Amino acid sequence: MAKINIGVIGYGYWGPNMVRNFFEAPGSQVTMVSDLRAERLPLVQSRYPTVRVTQKASELIEDSHVDAVIISTPVSSHYELALQALRAGKHVLVEKPLTATLEQAQLLIEEAERRKRVLMVDHTFIYTGAVCKAHDLIASGELGDVYYYDSVRVNLGLFQHDVSVLWDLAVHDLSIMDYILPMKPVAVSATSAAHVKGVPEDVAYLTLLFESNVIAHVHVNWLAPVKIRRTLIGGSRKMIVYDDLEPSEKIKIYDKGITLNNDAENVYKLLVGYRTGDMVAPQIEGTEALRTEAIHFLKCIAEGKQPLTDGQAGLQVVRILEAATLSIQEKGKPVELKTL
Amino acid sequence: MAKINIGVIGYGYWGPNMVRNFFEAPGSQVTMVSDLRAERLPLVQSRYPTVRVTQKASELIEDSHVDAVIISTPVSSHYELALQALRAGKHVLVEKPLTATLEQAQLLIEEAERRKRVLMVDHTFIYTGAVCKAHDLIASGELGDVYYYDSVRVNLGLFQHDVSVLWDLAVHDLSIMDYILPMKPVAVSATSAAHVKGVPEDVAYLTLLFESNVIAHVHVNWLAPVKIRRTLIGGSRKMIVYDDLEPSEKIKIYDKGITLNNDAENVYKLLVGYRTGDMVAPQIEGTEALRTEAIHFLKCIAEGKQPLTDGQAGLQVVRILEAATLSIQEKGKPVELKTL
Amino acid sequence: MAKINIGVIGYGYWGPNMVRNFFEAPGSQVTMVSDLRAERLPLVQSRYPTVRVTQKASELIEDSHVDAVIISTPVSSHYELALQALRAGKHVLVEKPLTATLEQAQLLIEEAERRKRVLMVDHTFIYTGAVCKAHDLIASGELGDVYYYDSVRVNLGLFQHDVSVLWDLAVHDLSIMDYILPMKPVAVSATSAAHVKGVPEDVAYLTLLFESNVIAHVHVNWLAPVKIRRTLIGGSRKMIVYDDLEPSEKIKIYDKGITLNNDAENVYKLLVGYRTGDMVAPQIEGTEALRTEAIHFLKCIAEGKQPLTDGQAGLQVVRILEAATLSIQEKGKPVELKTL
Amino acid sequence: MAKINIGVIGYGYWGPNMVRNFFEAPGSQVTMVSDLRAERLPLVQSRYPTVRVTQKASELIEDSHVDAVIISTPVSSHYELALQALRAGKHVLVEKPLTATLEQAQLLIEEAERRKRVLMVDHTFIYTGAVCKAHDLIASGELGDVYYYDSVRVNLGLFQHDVSVLWDLAVHDLSIMDYILPMKPVAVSATSAAHVKGVPEDVAYLTLLFESNVIAHVHVNWLAPVKIRRTLIGGSRKMIVYDDLEPSEKIKIYDKGITLNNDAENVYKLLVGYRTGDMVAPQIEGTEALRTEAIHFLKCIAEGKQPLTDGQAGLQVVRILEAATLSIQEKGKPVELKTL
Repeated sequence: MAKINIGVIGYGYWGPNMVRNFFEAPGSQVTMVSDLRAERLPLVQSRYPTVRVTQKASELIEDSHVDAVIISTPVSSHYELALQALRAGKHVLVEKPLTATLEQAQLLIEEAERRKRVLMVDHTFIYTGAVCKAHDLIASGELGDVYYYDSVRVNLGLFQHDVSVLWDLAVHDLSIMDYILPMKPVAVSATSAAHVKGVPEDVAYLTLLFESNVIAHVHVNWLAPVKIRRTLIGGSRKMIVYDDLEPSEKIKIYDKGITLNNDAENVYKLLVGYRTGDMVAPQIEGTEALRTEAIHFLKCIAEGKQPLTDGQAGLQVVRILEAATLSIQEKGKPVELKTL
Repeated sequence: MAKINIGVIGYGYWGPNMVRNFFEAPGSQVTMVSDLRAERLPLVQSRYPTVRVTQKASELIEDSHVDAVIISTPVSSHYELALQALRAGKHVLVEKPLTATLEQAQLLIEEAERRKRVLMVDHTFIYTGAVCKAHDLIASGELGDVYYYDSVRVNLGLFQHDVSVLWDLAVHDLSIMDYILPMKPVAVSATSAAHVKGVPEDVAYLTLLFESNVIAHVHVNWLAPVKIRRTLIGGSRKMIVYDDLEPSEKIKIYDKGITLNNDAENVYKLLVGYRTGDMVAPQIEGTEALRTEAIHFLKCIAEGKQPLTDGQAGLQVVRILEAATLSIQEKGKPVELKTL
Repeated sequence: MAKINIGVIGYGYWGPNMVRNFFEAPGSQVTMVSDLRAERLPLVQSRYPTVRVTQKASELIEDSHVDAVIISTPVSSHYELALQALRAGKHVLVEKPLTATLEQAQLLIEEAERRKRVLMVDHTFIYTGAVCKAHDLIASGELGDVYYYDSVRVNLGLFQHDVSVLWDLAVHDLSIMDYILPMKPVAVSATSAAHVKGVPEDVAYLTLLFESNVIAHVHVNWLAPVKIRRTLIGGSRKMIVYDDLEPSEKIKIYDKGITLNNDAENVYKLLVGYRTGDMVAPQIEGTEALRTEAIHFLKCIAEGKQPLTDGQAGLQVVRILEAATLSIQEKGKPVELKTL
Repeated sequence: MAKINIGVIGYGYWGPNMVRNFFEAPGSQVTMVSDLRAERLPLVQSRYPTVRVTQKASELIEDSHVDAVIISTPVSSHYELALQALRAGKHVLVEKPLTATLEQAQLLIEEAERRKRVLMVDHTFIYTGAVCKAHDLIASGELGDVYYYDSVRVNLGLFQHDVSVLWDLAVHDLSIMDYILPMKPVAVSATSAAHVKGVPEDVAYLTLLFESNVIAHVHVNWLAPVKIRRTLIGGSRKMIVYDDLEPSEKIKIYDKGITLNNDAENVYKLLVGYRTGDMVAPQIEGTEALRTEAIHFLKCIAEGKQPLTDGQAGLQVVRILEAATLSIQEKGKPVELKTL
């Protein structure tokens, strides 16, 4: 089978990882890399002498030897570049978040459908063994009914210029939630603060409200002295702690919960009992997520399939981010998540 | 000097700690203990044969040998018992939260002033070495400007019947914040969820908004599989991690932060730099907080002084809890904190 | 059934725990406490007004109302006091280590047999849920063949006057090993160092050698800046990490190991493969060990049974400590463990 | 200045790191790579198209375009290859341990001196910021007198064929000790065990004895269920915990220790008091050690200087390993460290 030719736009923080993974993935070869900044291009050439480079993204997009385009640039340029690439008949993989607005996401989805091209968003965590395991534990019913989802993603830096900490870090949590929770949120309440002049918010809190009594919450912070990547997922039967910084025990499953005691006669006795059993840290598949993701993208192209993190998955995250941004302006006032 | 005679109302979860500490504190003796539940009284007598017991709180309150009354009962009874005790001329120490409503707190403060009696609320954490150290680091300017206060206080149980997790656990964080932050919040946005029929909310999130760009947030949860007691405090010069579960290094001070780079010419270069230096875990005074608190209460009585955690401190916490409860009903809509 | 009357000799560091547990255990009552130091006796009386006190141990031993004697004094006095008590017809529980010499241990065992009295040594850890679980995992074959036992027990203080860190701390590890390992060591090699004038060794290392390829090692240290209580137990099928400082997950069972690959043709290929599976932290019984131990002692007295930690268990630990002391003098030269 | 041309022998586990670092270091270029295994050579060529490859080490050694040779092969071949390279007039950097015997190390040192070539051993940890900091804390007197050095280096795998865990892992600790301790050991006592047929020992314990009361101990294990890299260094004034797995706080300095109390009158009072102060985790330089090491090697070549980890440093580690191997055969009997 012929190899799929990949062009990568943007060789900044994340682009080199894209190039490396599509370089090493079976079934693809990186043909071309572009970056506006001339000084980034020799870096590509010294590491990958066979790859062509250009400062002009449009040159890469129009190149007839490029089958698929990876867009690894600031969010503000995602829509224009992705649209151009789809119109040029390319398959497209866009870094998260998919676009800067809900409307842009909708237009990209329509364009991809019209052109019958793969549109995928780089929600990397969906391709990790840990998130996959959490998904399965919920889907199989092992957790019981989901009660809450609580995530903390904080550390010092890297500040972004064009987006706030919410659009930068919360994307990860929102994409994970969208993938593993069986229900969709109906409203969002968010608050945040900015402490550096001329830079967007560096700390934000976001609550997702559901029709049922499920609640989800995300805390993101660029100004924290320590790095924390911890998610608690509570269920009626079991509970999960997902700590992405643990080298091997990323997922811990606790056989813990409460039991109800109907001793209505004694109003002073607690009606709630506690149940604690074993904790299990299942073995987690350790393949680099971006490698799994690259292979998935290539497979979707080859077989004409819809990716796991397709345009709709990207749109759903942007929908929540847009609503959260509104809620922040109103100091936490809940904003409904309209279905289009 | 004559010993101050202490009467303790309520011998449930926390009451025994009160009895033990006032039994051992120099300057006081526990004279009487009351509990509605007859079966609790023999426990007192077997441990403290010299202490008188009764089922009737009023008997204790009216006893002429009792100088000061500790109220260690469910929140709903705090106001009535404290009022009765103040009117009987006793000094009063009330378990947290001070009262169930802002109005009740106000009335107790007025009664204590009228009777010239000490009214103190049991905000225990204020009397720990760790909180004292955090307070001093902010007050001395070592942290610089405070940027945020973020606290997580979660574990499995104990469910309360008469109050939600907010009124049970968040009290600790709100009292600590009130003590160590140099500014007062102006509004609160809160969300929560309840998962057990007939029992109040078990998970809650609360954001405090300030006039400036300071932000404070509390996450409390009775249904978490692991116990976490961690507070992050960010400042312009340094940052603190306060982990109450660390056996000895409860406070860690990070010489970390950001520096601004005014290289306005290059829009692609980050304007924000990072500064990381040493981390210091100062030695923390390890005396049991309740012992320090007991001694402080006795000293305030002896010297006619206002306690550190006086009625106003108790009222301020109740004010925020009341507003948060309103905000929860409105799914996070911000509620202003009226000054009386 | 009549309660067993307990006399406790020594009210220093550990004695108060003995008094408290036998005070609260069903089936016993503490009748008398003795301590050479007059100033310790009022402490007993203020907490336990019904208990008689004396400075003379012999008075307690001879008292006709005392059925069993707990010896909670420095090691050097264990033998004399225990012998006297056995001769007076009392059952005896001695703090660890049982005696200062192997010969003394042997004589106590003989005296107890002659008098048909219970002789028990306070190897407290044997009565914890964690050690019990580790024992069961080995006994049931779940670990496979035992490969090694490695324990680290270090912290700052408490320095002892009459015994080295080996006789103070390593006792715990040796008693646990003796209980859970299915084979007995045949020799010991040990090294140590002393850094404080006039005080015995504060750091020691001890290797136990076996007939097979099992190896056991203990590291004890009174001068460590951090507290560590961690034991690794390697087996052919599974491995255990037992961390006594973990609040709830004290025992972790790793489904890890190696697999042999008989690819003899390729000398460059590794013959050893690695197997990693789930980790399980089983729920551990949390009763205070000393309570379980107290109840066990009372049961052995009532039913005339041999305790789990009988004289022989105490003797085996002293045998190893004596040999290790010799080895230390010879800078690690192995010393055989004679069977008597 | 002309670049120094580097030839790397061995492209297995560690060789690729050597190639990468000398490829990126200023002042050198990798000219040639050799490996006995033909299948390893295309890997080199795909990543570094400009590098020549060969199966024959001698071809690389004799190549006139090679100035310095890196030997990254199994220990058994170190001596022959290094000797050949020195005789061909090349500078040599040998992976640890330097040689398989003390005599070989001595001969290499002599050859290097005769040829006036740089002979350096790859004791990587000496070039880390953490070890550098520990060295400075001892050298500056901040720790006071060194009391003990205790290191644990355990994990599951990688089993080696030609050397035991002692020769594989303990090298790291011995090289660090040799660098940071101001005194030299005089004897060694070691024990070990092997659990896999046909493979050397997988667990070993090694005590170093000194003229003074300093003691050093190393525990290495290839069969541990968890990864531990922790060193405790006790001093009379302060103590260090060096945990190489900590992402940022690798070195913690504890202001802890003991104080002597000369209250000789009261034999029951402890003579030893405890002092605990702040803990400081200094910021550690984070450059990859191998990069620092490569630059140091190049500098020594350019300036004709003796490297920090020269032949003598390599010899000293081999001396201890050889003695430890003897001690293991005698089950821990101490073996003196002869000075040549």
